[in-house]
Amino acid sequence: MPISEIHSTANSELSLALDQAINNKTKPPGSLGRLEPLAKQIGLIQQTVRPALHQPAILVFAGDHGVVAENISAYPQSVTWQMVENFLAGGAAINVFARQNQCDILVIDAGVNHTFARAGLLDRKIDFGTRNFAQEPAMSAAQCEAALRHGMALVDGLAGNVVGFGEMGIGNTTAAAAIMHVLSGLPLSECVGAGTGLDAPGIAHKRGVIEAAVKLHGVTAPLDVLTTFGGFEIAMMAGAMLRAGQLRKTLLIDGFIVTSALMVALQLQPALRDYCVFSHCSNENGHVAMLRYVNAQPLLQLDLRLGEGTGCALALPLLHAAVNFLNDMATFESAQVSDKAD
Amino acid sequence: MPISEIHSTANSELSLALDQAINNKTKPPGSLGRLEPLAKQIGLIQQTVRPALHQPAILVFAGDHGVVAENISAYPQSVTWQMVENFLAGGAAINVFARQNQCDILVIDAGVNHTFARAGLLDRKIDFGTRNFAQEPAMSAAQCEAALRHGMALVDGLAGNVVGFGEMGIGNTTAAAAIMHVLSGLPLSECVGAGTGLDAPGIAHKRGVIEAAVKLHGVTAPLDVLTTFGGFEIAMMAGAMLRAGQLRKTLLIDGFIVTSALMVALQLQPALRDYCVFSHCSNENGHVAMLRYVNAQPLLQLDLRLGEGTGCALALPLLHAAVNFLNDMATFESAQVSDKAD
Repeated sequence: MPISEIHSTANSELSLALDQAINNKTKPPGSLGRLEPLAKQIGLIQQTVRPALHQPAILVFAGDHGVVAENISAYPQSVTWQMVENFLAGGAAINVFARQNQCDILVIDAGVNHTFARAGLLDRKIDFGTRNFAQEPAMSAAQCEAALRHGMALVDGLAGNVVGFGEMGIGNTTAAAAIMHVLSGLPLSECVGAGTGLDAPGIAHKRGVIEAAVKLHGVTAPLDVLTTFGGFEIAMMAGAMLRAGQLRKTLLIDGFIVTSALMVALQLQPALRDYCVFSHCSNENGHVAMLRYVNAQPLLQLDLRLGEGTGCALALPLLHAAVNFLNDMATFESAQVSDKAD
Repeated sequence: MPISEIHSTANSELSLALDQAINNKTKPPGSLGRLEPLAKQIGLIQQTVRPALHQPAILVFAGDHGVVAENISAYPQSVTWQMVENFLAGGAAINVFARQNQCDILVIDAGVNHTFARAGLLDRKIDFGTRNFAQEPAMSAAQCEAALRHGMALVDGLAGNVVGFGEMGIGNTTAAAAIMHVLSGLPLSECVGAGTGLDAPGIAHKRGVIEAAVKLHGVTAPLDVLTTFGGFEIAMMAGAMLRAGQLRKTLLIDGFIVTSALMVALQLQPALRDYCVFSHCSNENGHVAMLRYVNAQPLLQLDLRLGEGTGCALALPLLHAAVNFLNDMATFESAQVSDKAD
């Protein structure tokens, strides 16, 4: 499928103007640390020295994975739909943190193995879970394309200019680890972790399942890798990310699974990287190496490993802080404070 | 002066009840990372499984330092009062972040070398700056005691149960480094840094000034060290921290200077440690070692080095997140989600 080009945010004139605006604020140069390049990045994304964040939303994509038949998760598959119900009822961690930080959540059924009766869910179900990639590709090329298109259309419907990405899907750290391994070439030992709570033998088994599947399929092109190992929620996220970059929105990236979707999107459109803010470093083994691979320094390091977009919701106040200091702090001149040179 | 005892928050029955409440939430055990022990700590401070944060306030103490005569700062002393004016006008970073996160700020003149005309400042001025500790003790014992008492009284006047600590004072990283060095025994090279922006020769000079002063005075007891090297803002903070612990409030600790005040308070009342949440690790050389010395893991690592209480304001949403997940998330039972064991 054709994917529209994403343009870099590079702009040397605006970059200088943003540096100047940041350095004129009443503080020693650089003393706001990571918030300073963050403010600059958002300014470049929005092409202004006075950026504004409005109507932030987190898209939470849920999907089931055929590979759970290989016994690679500590929780039963039914937890996927049960947690979707929990999201819709407002009782999950992502609900609590999004409410606190005035962020909308959209919950999307990308392919959960369950028929939902409850209102409030966005039904974009591709199928009742993927197939087991230990035996056959997780989805067909047509299913993968449909998932990408749904993701794009969902972002077309967003009014806000900040999009966070979250997910739910028992088995999806296995899919994400396979994608990471094949796309990055990093050894499986660096890619595979405990997920929701495997013990050491469980992790070794999970690694073996992925290793055999990688040999079985022998794919390397990003969309083939996504089709072969991906979940519907991962493919839909990748599509949503690409559209968010095309529309010059700020992307807020969550943990291990969300970053695996981004790896696919970045191989298709490398300039998407300019639009990405990395909310946190997950405690899932593999996320550190994954973040290094995409050259990212996350904002938070809180040992989270929950997914759902929780890292995005928790990092959102830091994005507001970056934009707010740029817009609202006094300058040395306006506040009549002596600069260093005086 | 007599300082009322601070009691540990240790409570094995409540501790178990909090663990159980946290583990029953709809998430894999431990998956909210650092937020889980934070929620437990606040529960223990407030002696309840349903803690609540109300009316958080940040006390911003300002004071001047006689040791600036030794040319140890990149900025002129007048910046202290100019920044106090900036706080009162609402244009500083701390104003922006406190507004964003619905946190009150109280600005206290603990001893600025300036006569203020503007309303909104809490006048607790001990003197127009300390004396130069390169030549004589920074303050008298009576001045130090007065500062401690003012700090205590300020906290007595607070309605809220969360108190953040911030400061402003040109020269105060020199005072803080001296206090850290003497109280911890760590080598000066680990305690002295760039402050608002010294270059390498400037830092070497600053180290030499402190080294000579430490030899000159030869003090070791915590209140003597505070009297000899401290700023009025540091002493007033130490008093405020002690009262906050006595009143079982949650203390939110900012950067290098605030943590130096805490080091004094902890030597007087070690159980105060139970009440402290460390908001961030400053980029000021010395803060990493200082945090290690007080056995603290800060919530944020954003390379901030501004002071003012900015780290406290930025970390506050994480405290709310910890309390909110504990109070508002569904349990496995209430949400009918399968636990791992099912």
